[in-house]
Amino acid sequence: MFKIHKKFEKTTHYVTDLKLCQVRLQDNSKFPWIMLIPKRKGACQILDLNKKDQIQLLDEIQYCSKMMKKHFRCNNLNVEKVGNIVPQLHIHIVPRHKKDPTWPLSIWVIKGKPYTKNELAKILTKLKKII
Amino acid sequence: MFKIHKKFEKTTHYVTDLKLCQVRLQDNSKFPWIMLIPKRKGACQILDLNKKDQIQLLDEIQYCSKMMKKHFRCNNLNVEKVGNIVPQLHIHIVPRHKKDPTWPLSIWVIKGKPYTKNELAKILTKLKKII
Repeated sequence: MFKIHKKFEKTTHYVTDLKLCQVRLQDNSKFPWIMLIPKRKGACQILDLNKKDQIQLLDEIQYCSKMMKKHFRCNNLNVEKVGNIVPQLHIHIVPRHKKDPTWPLSIWVIKGKPYTKNELAKILTKLKKII
Repeated sequence: MFKIHKKFEKTTHYVTDLKLCQVRLQDNSKFPWIMLIPKRKGACQILDLNKKDQIQLLDEIQYCSKMMKKHFRCNNLNVEKVGNIVPQLHIHIVPRHKKDPTWPLSIWVIKGKPYTKNELAKILTKLKKII
């Protein structure tokens, strides 16, 4: 049975379930940063998904990208499959803004900062509404 | 008419043309790092491509991922759409290895190092053969 990786249970928060992916919020208040986790046991690479799932993943990436672009300050979208630390397949989607903490550099060049309880409640409510 | 961004003409090298994308080598000898550039004028986000092109892009990402995974040392594949500096849509594909210079961190946390003339000729020959 598919299970979210233990690490993600600590570092991310549940937003919603789409057909293929679970959408979660990265606990880093420096960027509005979500991730899509395909609910397929053992998948580590996009290559591990069958063709139908790959196209579904693309659709869900596009849907979430559109919503994030619409509802957050956004000069550009970063869409990244990295997964060097947690192997479970997950795609990061981060709307980037010219005034964000690392623009135009990568989201990976700076240490994260967890949300406060209030900030977290606020952004989760927003994300659950728009996605 | 579609043209490769000027910056890419300096920092990357031509490998081959696929149906949708031009494949280029990032001039950074620290990682075997290619990028796919969809030959569509004005496209900056994956969202800017029509659905048919998006699926073609997915196919070409999967094809190149498979080839890079097969022919380079690879514990994981990084597949990233970033583009904060050069807006022209491009997808980075980097096979990562546990002994590479920044594992398990991002490719973006370290300064690049251009290939020597000999190294460059060697890797371009290899890439042109496998992709």
